[in-house]
Amino acid sequence: MGLQKNIITLTTDFGSRDYFSGGMKGVILGINPDAKLVDISHEIASHDIWGAAYIIDAAYRYFPQFTIHVVVVDPGVGSTRRPILAMTDKHYFIAPDNGVLSFIYNDPGFSRVLHLTAGHYFLPTTGSTFDARDIFAPAAAWLSRGVPVDKFGDEITDFVRFNIPVPSRGSDKEISGEVVYIDKFGNCITNISISDMGDINSARDARISAGGTVVEGVSAFYASGEKGNPGAVVNGNGFIEIFINQGDARKTLGLKRGEKVRVVLK
Amino acid sequence: MGLQKNIITLTTDFGSRDYFSGGMKGVILGINPDAKLVDISHEIASHDIWGAAYIIDAAYRYFPQFTIHVVVVDPGVGSTRRPILAMTDKHYFIAPDNGVLSFIYNDPGFSRVLHLTAGHYFLPTTGSTFDARDIFAPAAAWLSRGVPVDKFGDEITDFVRFNIPVPSRGSDKEISGEVVYIDKFGNCITNISISDMGDINSARDARISAGGTVVEGVSAFYASGEKGNPGAVVNGNGFIEIFINQGDARKTLGLKRGEKVRVVLK
Amino acid sequence: MGLQKNIITLTTDFGSRDYFSGGMKGVILGINPDAKLVDISHEIASHDIWGAAYIIDAAYRYFPQFTIHVVVVDPGVGSTRRPILAMTDKHYFIAPDNGVLSFIYNDPGFSRVLHLTAGHYFLPTTGSTFDARDIFAPAAAWLSRGVPVDKFGDEITDFVRFNIPVPSRGSDKEISGEVVYIDKFGNCITNISISDMGDINSARDARISAGGTVVEGVSAFYASGEKGNPGAVVNGNGFIEIFINQGDARKTLGLKRGEKVRVVLK
Repeated sequence: MGLQKNIITLTTDFGSRDYFSGGMKGVILGINPDAKLVDISHEIASHDIWGAAYIIDAAYRYFPQFTIHVVVVDPGVGSTRRPILAMTDKHYFIAPDNGVLSFIYNDPGFSRVLHLTAGHYFLPTTGSTFDARDIFAPAAAWLSRGVPVDKFGDEITDFVRFNIPVPSRGSDKEISGEVVYIDKFGNCITNISISDMGDINSARDARISAGGTVVEGVSAFYASGEKGNPGAVVNGNGFIEIFINQGDARKTLGLKRGEKVRVVLK
Repeated sequence: MGLQKNIITLTTDFGSRDYFSGGMKGVILGINPDAKLVDISHEIASHDIWGAAYIIDAAYRYFPQFTIHVVVVDPGVGSTRRPILAMTDKHYFIAPDNGVLSFIYNDPGFSRVLHLTAGHYFLPTTGSTFDARDIFAPAAAWLSRGVPVDKFGDEITDFVRFNIPVPSRGSDKEISGEVVYIDKFGNCITNISISDMGDINSARDARISAGGTVVEGVSAFYASGEKGNPGAVVNGNGFIEIFINQGDARKTLGLKRGEKVRVVLK
Repeated sequence: MGLQKNIITLTTDFGSRDYFSGGMKGVILGINPDAKLVDISHEIASHDIWGAAYIIDAAYRYFPQFTIHVVVVDPGVGSTRRPILAMTDKHYFIAPDNGVLSFIYNDPGFSRVLHLTAGHYFLPTTGSTFDARDIFAPAAAWLSRGVPVDKFGDEITDFVRFNIPVPSRGSDKEISGEVVYIDKFGNCITNISISDMGDINSARDARISAGGTVVEGVSAFYASGEKGNPGAVVNGNGFIEIFINQGDARKTLGLKRGEKVRVVLK
């Protein structure tokens, strides 16, 4: 059991040039030298809680059972916002209670959230800026060594949870959604899934519009259109993405997170 | 044998802020929890197949025997371009068949290329944008667990292979080459090697020109010139680099990948 | 003993897109497949020796005993500057002798510095640009395998050591220091510690000025001020930081490394 929990992933807005992720890694390895550290991302935009929530949701389900995910985008560090431990039937999540785990609470296997209060598992600190190193990292490391979850604190039910936008249906033929994430290629990922559109056959004939851009039909893959032309595709997570073949849809089309997207089925 | 293959390196243009490398790592560890993941680079410029080809070539030979290298710059993801497994006598390479392994095919120990078709080793997916997670990562993980290579698909011989520019010799005293890679310091790496120039003694007196810049003699090391002055040096892979001491040769000299470089020996 | 030394951390200015860290990792794993590689940072600004010195100082103490830290910001690579191995009672450091370990020499457990001269532990190389791969990485790997430190070279005492600025006290009520590091959030870290100010109670009433900015009182945490307003806080290492709540103090306040900071206690 202890060994099964030895994978610890890190998702933060700490960037790659400072001492932040290094400090976390040192603390974890100091407590559990057998921990297997996996960087998911340290390049979440500074203070972008939503971005981190999206990234961990898109990645966690691919990790093996009992993986511990540490997710730290934490503008309220040191304040009264609570450090928490959330659980599904397969995974553990350690994070500040600021909504960054909102997508996790929608996992069908989600069970409960604990408030991390067992200070003897934390590092002593004079300052108030680095709970990732002083609270989240050691909690993850002790959990990976087999400390039972209930040793870390009591269950809470009033954890912070974002309202996650879901697509709405104007008529049988119309779906309204929005851009929820834009990746580094500039691909604009919507919250409209292929199942919202019926299947890939109905998607092939749909009209997708966002900002001033209109795309006719969902392509089979990025490279199917003319280089430089906008298109739409079903991405690896089953959601519609607006893209430009070998280009950057965000820059070229001026799309933003939150941009309304309208799908009309034929 | 299985254990000897447990190092898996990742070289991609996925960047460090999204869920892409995290998804790949989760899938690999889910299949082989003992895999040892090594990030070579996730910061290849988007869609820069040549850049990835250059980076993996410069790095792979330093890894131990039986290392598995996953190389994904893949603008044709989801299309008919084939997923492949290439082998030398020492290493394995998993990549899209778009030329990204071109340098590998020049390895004296290069043996063959297989078309990855054994779908039961892949992840099921609805979309078409993330073969790195759904095909390349699981193939690497199963290979690292000891699945024999021939289980993954049949040999192909018509794999895509770039024409790699080689220097030409105008006369006994003249060599024409080009800038093939520019690193993050702005150092401009040419395809002219020290052995092309004879030896370090003849290199010391050579005149190197590129763009409007003329450098007299190959320096012993970066810091040997005046700070801010252009120079040339033999880099750790044996190739001539044009550099500026503690500066950025690309920016200051306006050099680009593909820029012609001329060496005149004395 | 051998196993206890198997963690090797990497701190460099090599960036994340080239073959540099990959080459180092390959060499280390080729010599010691059981080495546990930990990236602290590869995004130190090019040639910023001070930045690397600061980062390794802020991170190393959190790693377990016998960790080997490889620190390479090395504008003098290939020149006569020496490769060194420094030791405290708990950690090993492998670096060029250019001052990058200056903070380490202040560790109360600091013992000695060796000049790495045992060439049979290094890689053969034609060039002069990549000692990180050819000297520092293999030395770290052999050390991690249990080669006794004295096998690597002789002790030196004339190693390069920066003058590290310390705060000065103008009167009982006044402390003069400076900004010594600015992190990716734009937080400006000073060399004035909470103990310089007495305690957190006296700090709460202090006036902190830097550039044209005056901050009244040290806050309990980043989020305690108005969003967008400048504040000061005691960071996780016990030093005063000037910050802007969810903003970038460097950009907004125009502060720079070396900027004078003045604290007046009430």
